[in-house]
Amino acid sequence: MADAQANIGVVGLAVMGSNLARNLASRKGNTVAVFNRSRSRTDELVSSHPEAGFIPSFSYEEFAASLATPRTAIIMVQAGKGTDAVIDELLRVFEPGDIIMDGGNANFQDTIARESRIRETGVHFVGTGISGGEEGALNGPSIMPGGSAESYTTLGPILESIAARADDGSPCVTHVGTDGAGHFVKMVHNGIEYADMQLIAEAYDLIRRGTGKTPAQIADIFTTWNQGELSSYLIEITAEVLKQVDAKTGKPLVDVILDAAGAKGTGAWTVQNALDLGVPVTGIAEATFARSLSSASEQRAASLGLDGPTPKRVSDVDGFIEDVRKALFASKIIAYSQGFDEIVAGADKYDWDIDKGEIAKIWRAGCIIRAQFLNTITDEYEADPDLPALLLAPYFRAHLESAQDAWRRVVVAATQNGIPAPAFSSSLAYYDGLRSERLPAALVQGQRDFFGAHTYKRVDREGTFHTTWSGKREEVDQTPSWH
Amino acid sequence: MADAQANIGVVGLAVMGSNLARNLASRKGNTVAVFNRSRSRTDELVSSHPEAGFIPSFSYEEFAASLATPRTAIIMVQAGKGTDAVIDELLRVFEPGDIIMDGGNANFQDTIARESRIRETGVHFVGTGISGGEEGALNGPSIMPGGSAESYTTLGPILESIAARADDGSPCVTHVGTDGAGHFVKMVHNGIEYADMQLIAEAYDLIRRGTGKTPAQIADIFTTWNQGELSSYLIEITAEVLKQVDAKTGKPLVDVILDAAGAKGTGAWTVQNALDLGVPVTGIAEATFARSLSSASEQRAASLGLDGPTPKRVSDVDGFIEDVRKALFASKIIAYSQGFDEIVAGADKYDWDIDKGEIAKIWRAGCIIRAQFLNTITDEYEADPDLPALLLAPYFRAHLESAQDAWRRVVVAATQNGIPAPAFSSSLAYYDGLRSERLPAALVQGQRDFFGAHTYKRVDREGTFHTTWSGKREEVDQTPSWH
Repeated sequence: MADAQANIGVVGLAVMGSNLARNLASRKGNTVAVFNRSRSRTDELVSSHPEAGFIPSFSYEEFAASLATPRTAIIMVQAGKGTDAVIDELLRVFEPGDIIMDGGNANFQDTIARESRIRETGVHFVGTGISGGEEGALNGPSIMPGGSAESYTTLGPILESIAARADDGSPCVTHVGTDGAGHFVKMVHNGIEYADMQLIAEAYDLIRRGTGKTPAQIADIFTTWNQGELSSYLIEITAEVLKQVDAKTGKPLVDVILDAAGAKGTGAWTVQNALDLGVPVTGIAEATFARSLSSASEQRAASLGLDGPTPKRVSDVDGFIEDVRKALFASKIIAYSQGFDEIVAGADKYDWDIDKGEIAKIWRAGCIIRAQFLNTITDEYEADPDLPALLLAPYFRAHLESAQDAWRRVVVAATQNGIPAPAFSSSLAYYDGLRSERLPAALVQGQRDFFGAHTYKRVDREGTFHTTWSGKREEVDQTPSWH
Repeated sequence: MADAQANIGVVGLAVMGSNLARNLASRKGNTVAVFNRSRSRTDELVSSHPEAGFIPSFSYEEFAASLATPRTAIIMVQAGKGTDAVIDELLRVFEPGDIIMDGGNANFQDTIARESRIRETGVHFVGTGISGGEEGALNGPSIMPGGSAESYTTLGPILESIAARADDGSPCVTHVGTDGAGHFVKMVHNGIEYADMQLIAEAYDLIRRGTGKTPAQIADIFTTWNQGELSSYLIEITAEVLKQVDAKTGKPLVDVILDAAGAKGTGAWTVQNALDLGVPVTGIAEATFARSLSSASEQRAASLGLDGPTPKRVSDVDGFIEDVRKALFASKIIAYSQGFDEIVAGADKYDWDIDKGEIAKIWRAGCIIRAQFLNTITDEYEADPDLPALLLAPYFRAHLESAQDAWRRVVVAATQNGIPAPAFSSSLAYYDGLRSERLPAALVQGQRDFFGAHTYKRVDREGTFHTTWSGKREEVDQTPSWH
C-alpha cells in the first residue's frame, strides 16, 4: 500500500480526468493519486506519463491510504448515477474533514441535494464547474467551485495552481458560493455561450446573404472584429472555422457541415431555471430553440417552399457590416446582462453570496466565453455592485445607445429580406421593453382579471382590485385585510 | 350513514369545487355526494342550493358509503400536498375498480407518478385538466381527462353531461390519453393562452402608439376583428376590457391598471417541458418572459431614460391596422403550430395516443382559447393526421403566405419605432427559420467541433466527422463502427 503522500487525488481517468490529473501533476507542490474503475486506464496513464509521478491505486482503500489528510479527491466521471456510486465508495473510506470535489457537469440542484446529504458525514462536498473542454483541463480551465468556505482553504490553492491565468496573472478560480453555486454559475456560463454562438451565427448569415461575401472573406471580417471590443475566443475560432476549406470538395467547410446544431442540455437548463426564477433570458432561449429548429429536419424539408422574400444585396456593404458589428455587440451585452440577472436571482433564491465582478474575472481565461469585455464587466460591478442590470452600467449603456440605430437597421434588413435573426430581434425587443414607460402588460392583467378574477394593481393607489366583469362592472377593493 | 345513491362525488368545496358540484347536480341523471375537510363549507353549499339535492358527508367513510360502486370521486383541492393527502384518505375507503379524478391544476409529471402508484391498488386515477375558470366550472368547462381508457367508460358520460358544448352540440371532453396526458394537454393549452394574450397585447400597443387611437376606439377594432377569422373569446374580452372606463378617474381602465402581468406558472411549465422535448415554442417563451419583464419594476424604473426613437404616427392608419390584424393572425397560427408540435412530441415521449383533431375540438368551447379557427384545426388534422406541422396545413399555409408582407411591415414598424413586439418578431423569425434552405447552425456546429470535439454531419455523405482543429486540421471519420 502506498504511503500517504499525495495532496490531491483524481477518480475517473477518461480524457477530462486524465488531462486534469496531468495538469495537477505538472504544477509545483502537487503529488497526484489516481484511480479508475478499470485498472487498464490507470496503468496506461501512469506508464505514458512517467514525468507526472502519479501514485496509482487499484482500490478505494488504497486510494484513500495514498492521500495525506485532510484527503482531497476530484471526481471526474459521467454526471448522474456514476457520480453517486463513486461518492458512496469514497464516503466508505474517507473521514470527517476530507473533501470530495465533483468536477463533472452536474445539475446544480443535484449538487445541492448531494452536499446536504454528505455534509452529515462530516466530509466536505464541493460541486465544481469546470469550463474549457479537454484542452482547458490540461492547460488551464476556468474553475467554479461551490461547497463550504472551509473546504476552499484546502482546495483553493490546488485549484489556483491549475487554473487558467488572465492577462494580469490572476488564476481563473474563486469560491463562488456554498453548495450548488459553482455548478449553477457554470450552467449560466453555458447558457450565455449558447446566446453568444447564435448571435455570431446570425451575424455571419446576415453578412453572407446580405453582401454575397464568401466564408473566407467573412473570416477576415471576424479577424478584424477580434481586434476591437468584440475580441473573444468565440470570435477568434469563428474566423478559423470559416477559413477552413473542405479537402474532399474544395468548398468552404461551413458549406458541407450539415446545418443541424446539437445540444447537450445546459442551455435548456439555464432557460428552465430562469423560468423558475422569473428572469427573462430571451437571448439564451432563442439560441436554444434555434438549435432545436435547425435539427427539425422533417419540418424544415416540408417548409422549404413557404413564400418569402429572396434576400437582396445591400447597397452599402461596409456600412452594413459595421451595422452588424454594432448589432452583435449590443445583443451580446443583452445576453450577458440577462445571464447576470439569472445569477443574481439564483443567489437570492438559494442564499449564495456571489460576487458578480469575481465571476466575470474568472471567465476572462480558460473558458469558452472568455473575452476582452469581461474586464469591463468586473470594473463596472466593482464600481457599482448594486447595478440594477449590467446593461445599465455606464460603459454598456453608452454602447447600447450608440449602437441602437444600427441595431434597428439590421433587424429591419433581416425582417424585410426573410433572414431569420431571432436572437438579434429578441434582444432588441427586450431593450425596447425595458425602456418602455408603459407596457401592454396592463391589458394582459385586465384580461386575466376578466376571465380568472386574478385582480390587478392600480398605478395611482395601493391595494388589490377586481372589476366585476360578469356583473355590474364595478371595481371592488380586494386588498387583503392584513395589508 | 347515507345510502349508496350518488353516482358522483366531489371532494373540496372551494369555488371551483362548489361550482363543479352544482354543474353536476343540475344535469339529468346525476346525484352528487359532497365532502369538504371543514364541515361549515359543506353545510353552506348544501343549504344555499337545496335544488341540487346534494348528499353531504362528514367523513371519508360516510363519503365512500354514499357513492354507488364503482365509486367515482372528483378531487378539487390545491395542487400538490393537499391532493396527495386527499388521495390517501380516499384510498383508505375506496375499493379496486373505483375512480379518483384529480381536477386540480397538477403538473402532468406528478400525475404520471400518482397514476403509477395508485394503479397498484386497483383504483383508477384520472388526472384531468379543466379549463374555463369559475364560470366554466359552473356552466360548462372544457375537460381534458387522462387515466385509463377503462375509467372513461364510467367517467366519460358524467363529464360529457357537464362539459361545454360546441356550436355543433358536441361536448368539449374526450379521453386525451393515459396517465398524465390530460394534465399535459391542459398545460399546453395554457401555454398557447399566454402566447395568444401577448400577441393581442402587442397588437393593441402597436395600434395605440402607431395611430394614437384611444382604448375605446381600439375596442371597436377588436369587436370588428371578432367577426372574422380572429373570432375568439380572448379577442371578445379584449374589446370589453379596453371599453371599460375607470369610475374613480374617468380614464380608460387599461390606463390605470399597473402594467405588471402576473403568472401562475403553467406558461413556464409549457416552455420548460418544450425544452426537455427539444420543441421550439418561441411564441410561448417570449410571452412568458414578457410577463416577467413587465414585473421587473426596479430594472424598468432604472431603464426609463435609455435612448430610443419616439414612435411616429403611421401615415396610412387603416392600412396599418389591417397589417396588424394579419400579423396577429399569422403569429397566432405560429403559436398554435408550436403548441401542437409540443403535444406531438409529448405523446411520442410518454407513449400517449393523442388525436390532435379531437384536442382542437374540445377547445372549441368552455376554455379560454376557444375560437372559431379551432374548427379549421380539426378539419385540417382530419384531412391529414400526419401533418408535419399545423402551419403547413393548406388553410394555415395560405394565410401565412398571404399575411407575410403585412407581418414584415408590422415588425419593421415596431423595430423602427422602438415598440417592443417580441412575440410578433420571434414568430416571424421562426417562420423564416423554417423556410430557410440553409441555416447558420452549420457554423454553430463547426464552433462546437472546434472547442469541444462534438463532431458534425456532412451534407454530402453519411457518417460523423471531426476536424483536428488543434493539429493538422484534417477531417477524420468518427462514425461509430456499429454504424
